[in-house]
Order: sequence, then structure tokens, then C-alpha cells
Amino acid sequence: MTILRAIAHIPLFEGLPADQLEDLAMILADQVFRRGAVIFSEGEEGKGFYVVIQGRVKVYKLSADGKEQILHIFGPGEPFGEVPVFTGQNFPAHAEAMEESRVFFFPKQSFVNLIKQNPALALNMLGILSKRLRRFTALIDDLSLKEVPGRLAAYLLYLSKQKKGSPDLELSITKAQLAGLLGTIPETLSRILAKMAAQGLIETQGRRIKILDGRSLQELAESGGR
Amino acid sequence: MTILRAIAHIPLFEGLPADQLEDLAMILADQVFRRGAVIFSEGEEGKGFYVVIQGRVKVYKLSADGKEQILHIFGPGEPFGEVPVFTGQNFPAHAEAMEESRVFFFPKQSFVNLIKQNPALALNMLGILSKRLRRFTALIDDLSLKEVPGRLAAYLLYLSKQKKGSPDLELSITKAQLAGLLGTIPETLSRILAKMAAQGLIETQGRRIKILDGRSLQELAESGGR
Repeated sequence: MTILRAIAHIPLFEGLPADQLEDLAMILADQVFRRGAVIFSEGEEGKGFYVVIQGRVKVYKLSADGKEQILHIFGPGEPFGEVPVFTGQNFPAHAEAMEESRVFFFPKQSFVNLIKQNPALALNMLGILSKRLRRFTALIDDLSLKEVPGRLAAYLLYLSKQKKGSPDLELSITKAQLAGLLGTIPETLSRILAKMAAQGLIETQGRRIKILDGRSLQELAESGGR
Repeated sequence: MTILRAIAHIPLFEGLPADQLEDLAMILADQVFRRGAVIFSEGEEGKGFYVVIQGRVKVYKLSADGKEQILHIFGPGEPFGEVPVFTGQNFPAHAEAMEESRVFFFPKQSFVNLIKQNPALALNMLGILSKRLRRFTALIDDLSLKEVPGRLAAYLLYLSKQKKGSPDLELSITKAQLAGLLGTIPETLSRILAKMAAQGLIETQGRRIKILDGRSLQELAESGGR
């Protein structure tokens, strides 16, 4: 695949105008790593970010006794190392090719220069990422709506039981932590809480939640939210 | 809540250094909309993007016969209108406050000037969005791993049956379309295909998939992937 066609297929750059794709093609290094080759090591300064074009790359940490803990495996189209590079941190883990892999490397300094000359590139990329986040949020909503309301109902009833059946509850953890506990994201949790309030099951005010209809919550908890 | 504290709580700006938060505070307009107030209308030029601080905002379209189709409801911390503004499009829908809502408005031109002066702001925001995408991807993987492998197995067996039981299949849709059909994202679908290949169930090459172990696929389809 030519460099330009390959770039156009990277979701991070999806829908960028042709001139911006060409600018990116000018600064990247087209690299091939053999199976087992180290791409970067933990603690190294992030001089740029990577996108897998072909093959598979694992990002991992080594425990004190030398055991490998794989954090993530990246395949075609997926960027890696971009979070530390964008936020000015060193690489927090190692990266290694799991098979012969073609990878594009974008040097940070050249990328920053591109953005200085042409802020529209940064705006477009922010737009692309926002759009993907929006799509992912909708999917998480969708996937979560099967089970999370039931789990949340069970959790609220559990809190109430701990307070000897009082309907007046106060969350001792943040909504982000509660979302994690229930296996969803804060945005989805907020929507579920708002829906429960609209249905008259609960009343919410910040971290305070009042149970209005314990029987329906109980049914929700038992049905698993279906 | 003071403007600076409110900004620091917006996930889009999570972890930005104090000076960049202050730069953003300088350009925003702190607005309150009454219940039912129109924030923007479909077709309008996007002069800037918004973040809900308090309240709830619905984004909707009107069908030919005037019926309202709600696309999304945004709550505290969530940006809206940023995708068209970043990508230079007009607003594709209407936005209206569902209750009295406090909203921060970030004018596009001022935001572009900030990025020109200080590309680190754009890089940091790209880093924040990338990090959230990474987290969301992991969660979708997690949520999808319950049911998607089973659904995928059922789909492959269905394709094979259509070809009179031939194990040699060719997808007539893209992987992105197949991911949507199965209720997941392409990244997760790729990981599931790679795992099935590693387990010896299938062999993949681009859009061609060869079934190697139909019996195990059948079991997977029947168990729902659990």
C-alpha cells in the first residue's frame, strides 16, 4: 500500500483533507520491525508516536520478577505511544513487534511544527477523536443498558440495607468510581440515574440519592435490568 | 462554582496544566439558558463549541412532519457542537435546554488563536481524548466479550450454510460494517478474530475467512460466547 493510501485508512486521520494527509506523509518514517524487535522501552523519552499499518504490536510492563504483563495488543490502524507523547511524558511501558510489523512513526517536533503552521490539522484531529468518542459512548450506553441499571438498583438497595432500610443515601465514592464499579462510564451512569429519576424510582442531588420506589428497584435488580 | 474550577472538571480538559486552563477561561462565555431556550439551530454556522456545566441539553432533528427526533441528551461535563465546529461544518441539528442550564461557550476563532500561540494545548487535548478513547475501547472489549464472539460464530456459520456448507467464506461487507452489525467496534472485532485464529477455529486473510473447526464455532454460537 502506498504511504498516502495507508494514512487515509488510519482512523486517527479519518476524513482529513488531502493536503493535510500529504503534510503528514512528509513527516512520517515508514518502519518495519521484525518479530520480537523492541520499538521503545519503558522510561524512554517519547520522541514521537506510532501507528500500526500491518502486523501486531504488544505494549507491556515487566514486573519486579521479570514477568511480562501485556497492557494492550495493537493491530492495523491503531496508534500507540501517542498519549505520553501528546501529554509530554516518558513512555510508561515497553513496545515490541509480535510478528513482522509495518509501523508509521510521527516525530513529535515535526508534528508540532505542522500544527503551528496549520491549526486546522489539530482541530480536525480533535473533531475526529470527538466523533469517535461520541460513537463509543453511544455503544457503551447501548451495551450497558442491558445490565447496568439492574446492577445499580442492586447497589442502591444494598446501601439502603446498610443504613437499616433508610431511603436517604449518600454515595461515599465519586460517580466515576461508581461507574467503574458497575462496568460503565460516568456519562452512561448519569443517563441511567436521570432515567430512574424521570421514572420516579429515585431522586438525586449530587451525591445524595433518595429511594422513592423500593419495590420497582427491587424488580429491576432481580430482572438484571432487562 | 467558579469558572476555573468548573473548567478543571470538564473531561475534555482533564489534567491540563493551570496556565492552559486559565487561557481557556479567558476566552469562554459563561451562559445560562432557560428551559426550552434554543442554543443553536440546524444549518447555522458553528461559531464555537459548548460544554454543559449544569442542567441538560437535548440535540435533535425535526422530521418532515415536524416530529422531534432526539439524537442525544447532554449533561454536566459533556461537550456538544464540537464535532461540526472542529471539522468546519454547519450545525447538523438543533440544541435546546431541557431545564435551566449553565453552559460554557468557546468561540472557535479565539480557540484557534490559542492553539496557534500554544500548540501544547492542542497536543494535550489530543492526549486527553486519546486516553479516553483507549479507556472506552477497553470497556467495549470487555462488554463485547460476553456476547460478540458467540454472535460472530453464528454469523460465520450462517455464511457457510448459505454457501452450502463451504468453509471458505468471503465477507461481502467491510469489517467496520460487520462490527456494527454485531454491536461492537472494528478494533474489538479484530481482536476477537485474532483470538479465534489463535485458537485454531478460523484462518483469516483480509476479507477471506476459512472455517477450520466448525464444531467449536457451533458450541460458541450456542453458548452465546460465554
